[in-house]
Amino acid sequence: MTRIAILGATGYTALELVKILLRHPGAQIVAATSRQAGSPPIGTIHPSLHGRLDVNLEDLGPSEVAGRAECVFSCLPHGASATAIVPLLEAGCRVIDFSADYRLDNPEVYTEWYGQKHPDPGRLGKVVYGLPELFRQQIVGASLVANPGCYPTSAILALAPLLKAKLIEPEGIVVDSKSGVSGAGRTLKLTTHYPECNESLSAYNVGRHRHTPEIDQILSTAAGTKVEVIFTPHLVPMDRGILSTSYSRPVGALTEEKLLAALREFYADEPFLRVIDHLPGTKDSAGTNFCDVTARIVRGRVITISCLDNLIKGASGAAVQNFNLMYGFPETTAL
Amino acid sequence: MTRIAILGATGYTALELVKILLRHPGAQIVAATSRQAGSPPIGTIHPSLHGRLDVNLEDLGPSEVAGRAECVFSCLPHGASATAIVPLLEAGCRVIDFSADYRLDNPEVYTEWYGQKHPDPGRLGKVVYGLPELFRQQIVGASLVANPGCYPTSAILALAPLLKAKLIEPEGIVVDSKSGVSGAGRTLKLTTHYPECNESLSAYNVGRHRHTPEIDQILSTAAGTKVEVIFTPHLVPMDRGILSTSYSRPVGALTEEKLLAALREFYADEPFLRVIDHLPGTKDSAGTNFCDVTARIVRGRVITISCLDNLIKGASGAAVQNFNLMYGFPETTAL
Amino acid sequence: MTRIAILGATGYTALELVKILLRHPGAQIVAATSRQAGSPPIGTIHPSLHGRLDVNLEDLGPSEVAGRAECVFSCLPHGASATAIVPLLEAGCRVIDFSADYRLDNPEVYTEWYGQKHPDPGRLGKVVYGLPELFRQQIVGASLVANPGCYPTSAILALAPLLKAKLIEPEGIVVDSKSGVSGAGRTLKLTTHYPECNESLSAYNVGRHRHTPEIDQILSTAAGTKVEVIFTPHLVPMDRGILSTSYSRPVGALTEEKLLAALREFYADEPFLRVIDHLPGTKDSAGTNFCDVTARIVRGRVITISCLDNLIKGASGAAVQNFNLMYGFPETTAL
Amino acid sequence: MTRIAILGATGYTALELVKILLRHPGAQIVAATSRQAGSPPIGTIHPSLHGRLDVNLEDLGPSEVAGRAECVFSCLPHGASATAIVPLLEAGCRVIDFSADYRLDNPEVYTEWYGQKHPDPGRLGKVVYGLPELFRQQIVGASLVANPGCYPTSAILALAPLLKAKLIEPEGIVVDSKSGVSGAGRTLKLTTHYPECNESLSAYNVGRHRHTPEIDQILSTAAGTKVEVIFTPHLVPMDRGILSTSYSRPVGALTEEKLLAALREFYADEPFLRVIDHLPGTKDSAGTNFCDVTARIVRGRVITISCLDNLIKGASGAAVQNFNLMYGFPETTAL
Repeated sequence: MTRIAILGATGYTALELVKILLRHPGAQIVAATSRQAGSPPIGTIHPSLHGRLDVNLEDLGPSEVAGRAECVFSCLPHGASATAIVPLLEAGCRVIDFSADYRLDNPEVYTEWYGQKHPDPGRLGKVVYGLPELFRQQIVGASLVANPGCYPTSAILALAPLLKAKLIEPEGIVVDSKSGVSGAGRTLKLTTHYPECNESLSAYNVGRHRHTPEIDQILSTAAGTKVEVIFTPHLVPMDRGILSTSYSRPVGALTEEKLLAALREFYADEPFLRVIDHLPGTKDSAGTNFCDVTARIVRGRVITISCLDNLIKGASGAAVQNFNLMYGFPETTAL
Repeated sequence: MTRIAILGATGYTALELVKILLRHPGAQIVAATSRQAGSPPIGTIHPSLHGRLDVNLEDLGPSEVAGRAECVFSCLPHGASATAIVPLLEAGCRVIDFSADYRLDNPEVYTEWYGQKHPDPGRLGKVVYGLPELFRQQIVGASLVANPGCYPTSAILALAPLLKAKLIEPEGIVVDSKSGVSGAGRTLKLTTHYPECNESLSAYNVGRHRHTPEIDQILSTAAGTKVEVIFTPHLVPMDRGILSTSYSRPVGALTEEKLLAALREFYADEPFLRVIDHLPGTKDSAGTNFCDVTARIVRGRVITISCLDNLIKGASGAAVQNFNLMYGFPETTAL
Repeated sequence: MTRIAILGATGYTALELVKILLRHPGAQIVAATSRQAGSPPIGTIHPSLHGRLDVNLEDLGPSEVAGRAECVFSCLPHGASATAIVPLLEAGCRVIDFSADYRLDNPEVYTEWYGQKHPDPGRLGKVVYGLPELFRQQIVGASLVANPGCYPTSAILALAPLLKAKLIEPEGIVVDSKSGVSGAGRTLKLTTHYPECNESLSAYNVGRHRHTPEIDQILSTAAGTKVEVIFTPHLVPMDRGILSTSYSRPVGALTEEKLLAALREFYADEPFLRVIDHLPGTKDSAGTNFCDVTARIVRGRVITISCLDNLIKGASGAAVQNFNLMYGFPETTAL
Repeated sequence: MTRIAILGATGYTALELVKILLRHPGAQIVAATSRQAGSPPIGTIHPSLHGRLDVNLEDLGPSEVAGRAECVFSCLPHGASATAIVPLLEAGCRVIDFSADYRLDNPEVYTEWYGQKHPDPGRLGKVVYGLPELFRQQIVGASLVANPGCYPTSAILALAPLLKAKLIEPEGIVVDSKSGVSGAGRTLKLTTHYPECNESLSAYNVGRHRHTPEIDQILSTAAGTKVEVIFTPHLVPMDRGILSTSYSRPVGALTEEKLLAALREFYADEPFLRVIDHLPGTKDSAGTNFCDVTARIVRGRVITISCLDNLIKGASGAAVQNFNLMYGFPETTAL
């Protein structure tokens, strides 16, 4: 049994992580942290866990965490996450970081988009981006994995194979994404107050969403040239699910058949990628670790459509997939 | 009092139309048609109208309709609508058509997109497109008005001013639209069965939605050159509201200030257009005849965002706005 | 034009009130208060009002309010509301109070349920309960009207006629109510955070909801004997609407026909009460000032079902109905 | 591996059943039937199953089903289900029936509520009601199990222990239930068309819902005397979840502590019953096989509140729990 600690266990990604790990035959949750006073049982904070996990939320320091756990999942916010992770790595823990702290290679880009200096700039550029479909081998041996953002996962899984195969132009790619509200987290905000966002759709953070440089970076690697996407996120009145619609220009003559074949070939051995002919709804992958991808050509533009569950393939499911790779479990265990 | 008949009164646009007309001091609903057996009271079919309108749904022929009403709103489906309208026009009625039958100028384009021959091709090209913000003067004297589609209204109101002012390139415009489910009508379909579409978002009719040529045609007129948009509609789990996000390339140097100023100038005297600085949610205009529009420049692309209530500004509110213009009421009456 | 001030204008009932008053030919909003810093335009706080009302939210004292307005709608929370209202009444304003402060006759009952001493106990017992269907005559001349709670309106309108007519036993009445989330207000709470309450139904405040003594009091008056209801509110994942299902025992032999006839007779002249044969959905009255009521007899029990829009007939619509009565407008004006 | 056939595999309970069985180490789905033409792959009918199960929906007769499978789950509608099950039992299959066909002991009661003669009246009264919490021992050896209805499960699990312990009066029990829309099935109906039922709550089938005699029968057994509940179902705008609020009279002096203790004692060894102190939301048990139960005493009445996922503990999860008991798997396998 691998002993696991979860940092910042009051939010939705932590809740989803616990639900998955409860089904995992090789994982045992031995600590869950939060700054909640009084060390409440986790079932008090997450009523759906009532009676299912006998763990309290404790305000633990790094040595206490490292004393109990081999593997740490950090669900802390950016900034706080790197700060907490550094001593854990030094103490020999292996870490999967849900925050953005180790996703970007360049500390200046981090500062530009996150508005603060990086707490651990020396590690940037050496941490694997935890998307198994692109970086499986590096994940296996990693001591630290940067778990991808939900929007980037949906955009990258649709576009990276096409850029790698030089089927689409790297310039001027539009990514129009739509996400359920759980993606905004559990912190109270007027924009996610039920009577405000229910029965309403809106774009937000247009031109300045922090997932932009992350998409840029991974797609640039795939394309072998600089990619800067025009990324627009929208908030959709539903709990979970992301659908990303991308628009790009084909390189040369390209048919839908060729497009779909390229995606199918790229993902031929992937357990969680479904390249489909039909148009997916987010519900088809909700509650699962699948990502559904399809593509069309419309009036000379390539359109890709990709769907996933933002809390699973976009967060906690991907994290467990990484965990399975790191610890030698079959990659689909508990997923 | 203008005597009004509503053809095809069982659907959502008819229901919304009745609700608006009940507030109208100069309109009297004297007939409502449907093929429902037994001439049920309208409150039986639309429980929200119970006790508010003493009209039965009758299966009336054109002479009966023309015998009772001066003005006819047709909420019939395309094909059936033109067939019903022709004799009414000949009998001297003025007609506002909610269907697509008289929106397109070219019968071949109609056949291409609607898969059938037009029942009244001779009138095509002579019917005003009922978007007051662009064609107010022609609406005033019209005997037949083609009430615009909901998606086209949202796309055109954002883009036409920019194309007219030569601020954006007419080539390669992407319109990524998101609509509530009422836009799909009241006919039962698996895709709009609650447990299928609730908590799910999907793209549909990619590359072949019938509103495409309508957007093309009006934007081409605005641009003075051929425009062919890449239009992708999405179904959103909410009752009503459309948000359209468009992506285009600026002509020359263009700032957000200049963009917004151009929109503000174009709509300076419009009662129902709100050019706003903030990012709108569809809820801000839900239940109203407003269309909210804003614009941004992101990485050298122009992004417009426009919101409206698909059943009001996208259908029945626009129809009453047209009615007001045709019959000399203040344009905002009942809206 | 009656000059109107709205106290506490940042919430949902104030927003709905403004929307109704904008349609009112005899009302002019001259002030709207809040403790928001910087006196923002009301359209900044309520984006749906953008461009529709040129009023700023100001932090005004009683003399400033009384200097501008004849009639004041207080949307302040209980406690704060009475405190603000006393000087306004003394300055000659007429007031419609949305809070619970003047609904209960007995200051001790107030203290028991609201956990604080009443700021103006001397007035209790002399203020009319603003339910026109029961207390129309007293409302007409009132200087202060206690606008009813949303749950009580739904329960009382169904049960009071049956208790008055001695058709049901006053003992052991169960009121099982279900409300949309807007009833919980605009203040951020975890229970109304979208991902918490969406796709979930729960009972809350079982046995201790503050609307209980208000239902008791008005039903006791109707019955001529003490009534204590068993009241259970539930939170429903929808924006607006209340449906109350009540269970009581018939007095003697009673048929559904007789039950419905009694309700119909009682409400024969009411413009906003619809006694219906079919089972209503909350959507039928959403966005309107209607209350739909029906009744059944099942296995010897009387079941009543009543629906209304909690923000309109359950709050702001009722308030304008009261305003119309107080100021001599036709009762249905703007409703 | 137990070879399993699913009859009537196009609906939501069958879909949920497949998802659970895919996680089951001892179950193999070898057939799935429907009258769909062309034997489509199950992933065509249920897109969420795309790529997860290589089975086609076939129109199979009983001998074909019995030739392939040992255990049959029938998701057919009542009437059709018994007709299909009889030959399967004769061919030696063990059957779990999701329909109501074998739940009632008395064929006359069946005819009264279901409006048709029972196809197999001789078996009635000898079939175990598949609620493990009450009838575990009989399930273990059964060849036919009547899987309980969703509403009955929620009502019975809250009330049966209290009736057995003589803590509440068997007379006059009110069960006010609220269900998500998936409970109404996948057949298209206007009442479950998205724009009709979204943002709306309604009572339906008041006094005549077919789950009534099923609740009566099991509670009568528990009480040892005739019980006839007043049962009112409501349709809630959410996908899944049932919350039942019951009202009854205590026998003698009874405290909340005693009530909750009685429930806790009764369910002390149950893996899926959570007797809780807090008020549950349906989301707490959504996606799981748990049933959450709590109780209160309000003004001398006992109120119980019970929540479960109508498709899991209310249907497919319970069915797999029964399957586990029948085939000797640990009861919680795959749940």
